[in-house]
Amino acid sequence: MKRKLTIIKVGGKIVETPDSLDALLHDFSMLEGHKVLVHGGGRTATQIATQLGIESQMHNGRRITDAETLKVVTMVYAGLVNKQIVCGLQALGHNALGLTGADMDYMRSEKRPVGEIDYGFVGDVKEVRADLLADLIEKGLTPVLSPLTHDGKGHLLNTNADTIAGEAAKALSRYFDVTLVYCFEKKGVLMKETDDDSVIPVINHDTFAQYVQEGVVAGGMIPKLENAFQAIEAGVQAVIITRSDDLEGKNGTRVQA
Amino acid sequence: MKRKLTIIKVGGKIVETPDSLDALLHDFSMLEGHKVLVHGGGRTATQIATQLGIESQMHNGRRITDAETLKVVTMVYAGLVNKQIVCGLQALGHNALGLTGADMDYMRSEKRPVGEIDYGFVGDVKEVRADLLADLIEKGLTPVLSPLTHDGKGHLLNTNADTIAGEAAKALSRYFDVTLVYCFEKKGVLMKETDDDSVIPVINHDTFAQYVQEGVVAGGMIPKLENAFQAIEAGVQAVIITRSDDLEGKNGTRVQA
Repeated sequence: MKRKLTIIKVGGKIVETPDSLDALLHDFSMLEGHKVLVHGGGRTATQIATQLGIESQMHNGRRITDAETLKVVTMVYAGLVNKQIVCGLQALGHNALGLTGADMDYMRSEKRPVGEIDYGFVGDVKEVRADLLADLIEKGLTPVLSPLTHDGKGHLLNTNADTIAGEAAKALSRYFDVTLVYCFEKKGVLMKETDDDSVIPVINHDTFAQYVQEGVVAGGMIPKLENAFQAIEAGVQAVIITRSDDLEGKNGTRVQA
Repeated sequence: MKRKLTIIKVGGKIVETPDSLDALLHDFSMLEGHKVLVHGGGRTATQIATQLGIESQMHNGRRITDAETLKVVTMVYAGLVNKQIVCGLQALGHNALGLTGADMDYMRSEKRPVGEIDYGFVGDVKEVRADLLADLIEKGLTPVLSPLTHDGKGHLLNTNADTIAGEAAKALSRYFDVTLVYCFEKKGVLMKETDDDSVIPVINHDTFAQYVQEGVVAGGMIPKLENAFQAIEAGVQAVIITRSDDLEGKNGTRVQA
């Protein structure tokens, strides 16, 4: 039987203010079994970029990453945010290891082709090498993954943290029973967008189709859930969408096959 | 018989300009056997700090690291410089892994006590856990060490890169026959400071004492060589002081017991 692994993806905001970061790391340290933390850091990146006189350009919520912006996100994601988390987890007795996709060559991507929009140094994930990563997790290490990958040709590439979490979960499901928990600002997928207590406890393919038809699930939640189903089809045990004060995903929405 | 391991320490300047970094990584990639790269990044840190409106304060060549400066060096050392090197080595077919002392808890330090000078968040190394590091090196990974450690209580600490290299060399000499190569701007320890071709090929305890007495070795080279002897006494096979275009240390000064 495979051992259990929980992969938690948290957004930028929670890791970017000291109090909420402390609370998150405390909750994360209480989770039983093997685990991985995937983080963002966009707000700090925007703030540092502004201080450095670099304008942050976004398109559909994605950062357009020119050469100067790539330097900023490398500093903020792989440096400041990642190492504060690693150091904080060590203080809680967790042997953490911070990684970009370039480290141990664990996640390669390709620069996104220029279409209507030129996203610049943004990577679409192409290959995940999870063997060393799985080995380190078995040894008791807790990987902390920052949203950067590389192309194997000497370029770091800015990569969506949800994608990093999903791709890592898929690749690691060869070695572990993986539960992937996406934390965001709401309690889960809601029946009524305005009612935070209307969390849908379980979604499967059939109910998803039904909810989309009824307009209950709409907008950005559709691709999020499609990604979740992809992860499950690739062998991930469960995907949970919940709020960041519920890392165990007890009160969120569980996505099942 | 232990296997050979070469630990190369390079200063900031060489890793901070694209051309010299490319040349360094090329030379480094040509070195045979297991290896570790230790880097600085002070010039970039000073530059980014200036851009962010943070004044860089130095004392005897050491950076006084207040809370804001610690953020800058974390961004620059662990983020920008470290990941550019890791990514560059991957492109050359070397499976690199970038680390601070907090990663895998491999190097702990204590905040330097406030004496005449308050260095701020600067760490003096107290403990090196080299077992996991040695294991990864055996597996073919190339660690890339940035000059940051942690105190195990949630604080990253700015730590001299020469010290990181020396402490890593000592701890890894339990597992490997370690050669430690310190690269700097001169060809080695010089008989005449003004004559770059007057490199002393070998220094041992006896000749060191003699050179100090004669005034041949003076100033900052004395503690550098004292550290080198300490490393050798702790089991490091050889320490070489040379220029960064001579990573094999053929033309530098070899420090022996």
